[in-house]
Amino acid sequence: MDFIKEFSDKDRFAKQIGIELVEASEGRAKAKMQIKDIHLNAVSTVHGGAIFSLADFAFAIAANTHGNISVALNVNISFLKAVSEGTLFAEAEEVSINPKIATYNIRVLNEHNELIATFQGMAYRKERVLK
Amino acid sequence: MDFIKEFSDKDRFAKQIGIELVEASEGRAKAKMQIKDIHLNAVSTVHGGAIFSLADFAFAIAANTHGNISVALNVNISFLKAVSEGTLFAEAEEVSINPKIATYNIRVLNEHNELIATFQGMAYRKERVLK
Amino acid sequence: MDFIKEFSDKDRFAKQIGIELVEASEGRAKAKMQIKDIHLNAVSTVHGGAIFSLADFAFAIAANTHGNISVALNVNISFLKAVSEGTLFAEAEEVSINPKIATYNIRVLNEHNELIATFQGMAYRKERVLK
Amino acid sequence: MDFIKEFSDKDRFAKQIGIELVEASEGRAKAKMQIKDIHLNAVSTVHGGAIFSLADFAFAIAANTHGNISVALNVNISFLKAVSEGTLFAEAEEVSINPKIATYNIRVLNEHNELIATFQGMAYRKERVLK
Repeated sequence: MDFIKEFSDKDRFAKQIGIELVEASEGRAKAKMQIKDIHLNAVSTVHGGAIFSLADFAFAIAANTHGNISVALNVNISFLKAVSEGTLFAEAEEVSINPKIATYNIRVLNEHNELIATFQGMAYRKERVLK
Repeated sequence: MDFIKEFSDKDRFAKQIGIELVEASEGRAKAKMQIKDIHLNAVSTVHGGAIFSLADFAFAIAANTHGNISVALNVNISFLKAVSEGTLFAEAEEVSINPKIATYNIRVLNEHNELIATFQGMAYRKERVLK
Repeated sequence: MDFIKEFSDKDRFAKQIGIELVEASEGRAKAKMQIKDIHLNAVSTVHGGAIFSLADFAFAIAANTHGNISVALNVNISFLKAVSEGTLFAEAEEVSINPKIATYNIRVLNEHNELIATFQGMAYRKERVLK
Repeated sequence: MDFIKEFSDKDRFAKQIGIELVEASEGRAKAKMQIKDIHLNAVSTVHGGAIFSLADFAFAIAANTHGNISVALNVNISFLKAVSEGTLFAEAEEVSINPKIATYNIRVLNEHNELIATFQGMAYRKERVLK
């Protein structure tokens, strides 16, 4: 999926905060982020915004694997466990898809496979094509 | 609210992506982020993660103004309008509060006062005290 | 808005559980439900499903006032206060609208104007026309 | 789980709209609802409120299997497919649990095993004990 690699490389915010694409296939994506001092909030756990951004990146990649530009409409995220060090992984999978709307579940795990957050995203599929 | 200023200054992720506290009072907060190239996603609009992070920062500040450490349980965000330049503002207000749980609405606006995203957050209030 | 009155009268589920339309205007709606024994859950407070249904009815009416058939894509509801008697009101207002997607905030209040629940709904606007 | 059967029998709203408990075990529950005319909305598909109520019932049962009274804080539901006849099933499973907060995923399926809605619920666990 060369167009996905290219698409992912253009994401400047992901780059800025150290998010990397691990793999992508139709309707799926996996990303990771090694926790650094820049990801911490005022109580020295990983900022909700950093966890969200990792999951959102995996969501965007999975939603764009079909080749249409897809944009997020709505996301619901639950924060299950605070974390301060190690590496976070986000795994996105497609739950449903129709011509206009697609939905994805994203799980955020740490390197011990503990669930850190769950994220449900709904995307609007535009007609403009990526590849 | 000196303890809030101090609390906000310790947020390294907010610093990393250019989020600034504008003002805070009991149950309320306002933050801003000037859009730069680092905030953009692969289609050159502001990344959902950056918009979320700005709103989440205002949410955290508002939730901590009472002096207890509060942590996010759940957030729902709707993305209403794509944006590529200018300045974003997030305004948090308390919707309800009881000894354990508090909820907040956060509106993200651009400098033309157009609504970019709405964010509803629920926080768990710990007994540990900030100030 | 005669077509809205007609539309509302066809809602059999609303009828079954005692939901009534109070008023509707473009992008807005208000509904009510007098709490009865049939609305209670196992701990004798109003069932989350009954509160949701009241809010969802107001959401559907508000979303259909423009005359297009609109269907719910996603809803987020926060339950703020348990209630066992009296009358509940749901007030829906439009937050944003574009040709395909519209979003609404719905507040559920009791007769003392206490906030019982907040509900955010996103609808997909079909081309099929009601009126 | 006799106390769960008893708990479920006291749910008057579930009874009113024809929701039945199929099975429950620690952290899990399954419920069903045969679609009747009373469940339909103005466009003759099953009302979002009826789908939500079925899922919410399974959520409540699963959350109460541990024996503490648990109350819903927040729910996010995505409606994936409209349905007008047949039988709906809701399957709840626990995603995470700690002394105060527990989260559940609920899938609503029809009798052809098609996904109709997904529901994520967060509950607050009280100290009061059911059994």
